[in-house]
Amino acid sequence: MEIFYIPDIIDNTEWVTITGAEAKHITKVLRHKAGDELFGTDGRGNEFRLRIEQARGTTIICRIVEKKTGRREPKHRLALAQALLKGDKLSQVVEGATEVGVNEIIPFVSKRVIGKMGETKRRRLEKVAISGMKSSLRTVLPKIGEVVDILRLLKRFAEFSQVLVAYEEEKETGLAQVLKRDIQSLLLIVGPEGGFTDDEIKQMKEAGAIPFTLGPRRLKAETAALVVSSLCLGLLGDLG
Amino acid sequence: MEIFYIPDIIDNTEWVTITGAEAKHITKVLRHKAGDELFGTDGRGNEFRLRIEQARGTTIICRIVEKKTGRREPKHRLALAQALLKGDKLSQVVEGATEVGVNEIIPFVSKRVIGKMGETKRRRLEKVAISGMKSSLRTVLPKIGEVVDILRLLKRFAEFSQVLVAYEEEKETGLAQVLKRDIQSLLLIVGPEGGFTDDEIKQMKEAGAIPFTLGPRRLKAETAALVVSSLCLGLLGDLG
Repeated sequence: MEIFYIPDIIDNTEWVTITGAEAKHITKVLRHKAGDELFGTDGRGNEFRLRIEQARGTTIICRIVEKKTGRREPKHRLALAQALLKGDKLSQVVEGATEVGVNEIIPFVSKRVIGKMGETKRRRLEKVAISGMKSSLRTVLPKIGEVVDILRLLKRFAEFSQVLVAYEEEKETGLAQVLKRDIQSLLLIVGPEGGFTDDEIKQMKEAGAIPFTLGPRRLKAETAALVVSSLCLGLLGDLG
Repeated sequence: MEIFYIPDIIDNTEWVTITGAEAKHITKVLRHKAGDELFGTDGRGNEFRLRIEQARGTTIICRIVEKKTGRREPKHRLALAQALLKGDKLSQVVEGATEVGVNEIIPFVSKRVIGKMGETKRRRLEKVAISGMKSSLRTVLPKIGEVVDILRLLKRFAEFSQVLVAYEEEKETGLAQVLKRDIQSLLLIVGPEGGFTDDEIKQMKEAGAIPFTLGPRRLKAETAALVVSSLCLGLLGDLG
């Protein structure tokens, strides 16, 4: 199975036109023709079964045969707040997190963050998310947020049933102990290579975040991001 | 904290000599001098607290001050059998698996494996494991096995308390349902990009392996390897 990303598909219409690179891939590489069926997603939770009515050059006109919502998506809304990382590590985080089922990635800066991220890099991460959504057959495209600072991150806590933060200095409390199982949404926070300062952890705790440990081994930030996302979705029953 | 890999450290002696690249790093980069203390591991589960007695050029003579065994290691022995993957993806698997706590990586070939792996590449993976062991502060160096075929992989099943295989066509049974919690050792099998053939799964099942699903989203093999290793160690209480 393959699924195509058609962001401008309009709900409740009968027809959709696919153009550009996606259309070119469908006609030139996969050699689909009129009469063939394919699957498309709007990245907003909908999957469409489409029948090609006309394929000319890079314009494909399809009839919407069937629509399903929330296919292959986790039942829980998981957002991953990830501190900026050196080099291309954030791409690796976005790729893995998208595949396992994260719904939003919020890049943030904290005291020990090295480097920065502009709009060009954010857009590149969006492309990584699109490719991850397609390869994992998801129907929701994870949102790649604008870079925020800790204060703006704190302001978002209220949107989630629970907020958890991976913290090296936490030695006792593991994830399985603190993660509530009856939640609808979860914000997971993973720090930069150098970790959080005491002040940052204090601020987050005061705003309701619970620190947890991933055990005695020291994980790289990009490994930790995928590990915690997997463990949470696993514990919530969203990974099989 | 930093830990150095000193494979030729001999147990139950009083002294150890560090030479080569590790010694150079200690004296030239970290500028350690006589009297300084540092930590070393033999990669076989032992951590040594060392005091530098003499540091000349790339030869460092240390006194063993203290020895501890099994520090920061999982209580369960987890082996990951990973089918060969394209490009450098196996390095990514070895890196993440080492960090979370896998004890052995067994590369194998199956029908849908593309590519091969010679001794040069295997040695490169050993270096990735060494670097992962050091960065995660582990005291066990995961073994990187020789490449085996499915038949030779089956012969190893008897060494483990349980054998589990991630399988795309398994739609019902999740990992949390099948993983026994009272085991001492576990063999986890992750297939190649194209998955396993029906015959291969049949063979593995007959030899005692239990297939499980990671849910409806399609994970890349290299993502799946880290996800299943994390989920297992998490469920066994070895990730905090």
